[in-house]
Amino acid sequence: MTEGDPSGRPAKAATIGELGEFALIDQVTAGLSPSGPVVLGVGDDCAVLRLAGDLAVSTDTMVEDVHFRRDWSGAEDVGRKAVAACVADAEAMGAAPIGVVISLAAPASTPVEWTAGFAAGVRAECEAAGVQLVGGDTTSAAQIVITATVLADLGGLPPLTRAGARPGQVLAMAGRLGWAAAGVAVLARGFRSPRAVVVAHRVPQPPYGQGRVAAEAGASALIDISDGLLADLGHVARASGVTLDVDTSRLEIAEPQQAVAAAIGGGDPLLFQLTGGDDHALVGAFEADRVPEGWVVIGRVLGGEPRVLVDGAEWDGPPGGWQHFTS
Amino acid sequence: MTEGDPSGRPAKAATIGELGEFALIDQVTAGLSPSGPVVLGVGDDCAVLRLAGDLAVSTDTMVEDVHFRRDWSGAEDVGRKAVAACVADAEAMGAAPIGVVISLAAPASTPVEWTAGFAAGVRAECEAAGVQLVGGDTTSAAQIVITATVLADLGGLPPLTRAGARPGQVLAMAGRLGWAAAGVAVLARGFRSPRAVVVAHRVPQPPYGQGRVAAEAGASALIDISDGLLADLGHVARASGVTLDVDTSRLEIAEPQQAVAAAIGGGDPLLFQLTGGDDHALVGAFEADRVPEGWVVIGRVLGGEPRVLVDGAEWDGPPGGWQHFTS
Repeated sequence: MTEGDPSGRPAKAATIGELGEFALIDQVTAGLSPSGPVVLGVGDDCAVLRLAGDLAVSTDTMVEDVHFRRDWSGAEDVGRKAVAACVADAEAMGAAPIGVVISLAAPASTPVEWTAGFAAGVRAECEAAGVQLVGGDTTSAAQIVITATVLADLGGLPPLTRAGARPGQVLAMAGRLGWAAAGVAVLARGFRSPRAVVVAHRVPQPPYGQGRVAAEAGASALIDISDGLLADLGHVARASGVTLDVDTSRLEIAEPQQAVAAAIGGGDPLLFQLTGGDDHALVGAFEADRVPEGWVVIGRVLGGEPRVLVDGAEWDGPPGGWQHFTS
Repeated sequence: MTEGDPSGRPAKAATIGELGEFALIDQVTAGLSPSGPVVLGVGDDCAVLRLAGDLAVSTDTMVEDVHFRRDWSGAEDVGRKAVAACVADAEAMGAAPIGVVISLAAPASTPVEWTAGFAAGVRAECEAAGVQLVGGDTTSAAQIVITATVLADLGGLPPLTRAGARPGQVLAMAGRLGWAAAGVAVLARGFRSPRAVVVAHRVPQPPYGQGRVAAEAGASALIDISDGLLADLGHVARASGVTLDVDTSRLEIAEPQQAVAAAIGGGDPLLFQLTGGDDHALVGAFEADRVPEGWVVIGRVLGGEPRVLVDGAEWDGPPGGWQHFTS
């Protein structure tokens, strides 16, 4: 415990090492009240969820100084992003996300304010995504490492895998591309604006609920764009055995993206759209007459060898896509 | 890439940084073939599982130099332990474990042999536990951090929480106590024997399948002993609002535990049983005439304030129980 300050206020933990594990768990989970499909929430050996259909499950890990920097993103941003990134994977199966479990490994020296902000971000994004925090783990580590796992309900519909695209369909997208990448581009150069793209890096805005909309509209394949449009469509092309052709005239390049591309030395803002990850747009293969409202047609599914074309031609720009461990 | 060696063998990645993320994922998942309740395995945005009843889910994180040391445990041990520890949480709800997802964060300098051993351990323990590896994530980090999440099927029975113990019942146990703690005691003093307790620290042996046996025998509360018998029974006492009385004459102190207690300076081997964690025995509250075969009665559920007695008396030894972050 730290000493009380001269004002006479009681001593208060400044770090999570002083706070202790159980108090830290309380900080994250206090007041949570399971409802709906969550039969049993935080506090026992497991949480218990009641699903109407098959379970879709995915896990995502974020590491300090690999996926986020504490000087670029606030604690609340990091909490929001952890939830958003994993929930997007459930949306990408056409499932309805129900719950998340979150593991937080962090140094004992981490300020209590940071974990409080992180917890607030987790809760805020859970609310935005329509999911409940149902469990987790906390432990000490040299570095902040967050693993979030999403539990989602397919509710009687088949999962929308990457393997279901068929020639003759159109590619349609919900959400947005290239915002987070533009944000990283300015942050890496020491700037904090345009604010809209910086905020997009800090907290992605997946199109919550649209995975289910795609499933109900009869989409036959769906993916979320986490590594970049071309890289992720490459997964769909290979899994489905089709050629995908992206029509760049349908990709809306926003003003802040143009501003960033211009500012960083005449870059092509289209690159943010084609190769930037982390915005978690959903892209699916639909029959042309069944594209849901609000989705934008951005290309076509063709027969032929598994590859991704840009405006009908081979792409000769940077491939995009993000691999860890490689230099 | 490293250079080929003088024998003329082809160049080969020595570290996971050289191997790359996708090859690392292949190393862990190659040849996995989903079956039974696993509708869709590794490789898409989510795995898909088909459950007969409610879903039980829990997550557990292990950090290098906090939960394991690479000089005390081999890579395969660490993989096995990650699976065992999380599956035990599902057993402790009376659920049938079906799948696990595993996140591995590790330095780029980690030897490929280490991750190959880790993957082999994960697979071996999945087989022992009757679960399938259905997904995961890999990323770089300063330190090895492993998060495993278990998905389990309650199959039409209610979850066995910590809150269901009732006066008049007996406490019965499957599995064993105090082995891992004895192992840590010798390893911390620089010894590697008795081998049985060292192995127990490296790879716990939860009583797989016995959670479901307890549920079918009508147990009304169940927990796995991960922090120590007294600490974990404390959770049951508080959640159920009962007094629990442990009969130490029913706790079998094994020869290696006696040997360790004697060797480390006249310690009481009973302490390993009462306060040692990480063996993941299951302890449940049963009607006296419905204790399943192979389970050992180790105490009673009494009315009265929430507390844990040892042979009818207050416990005045060390409390046991493990909190992270506290010094």
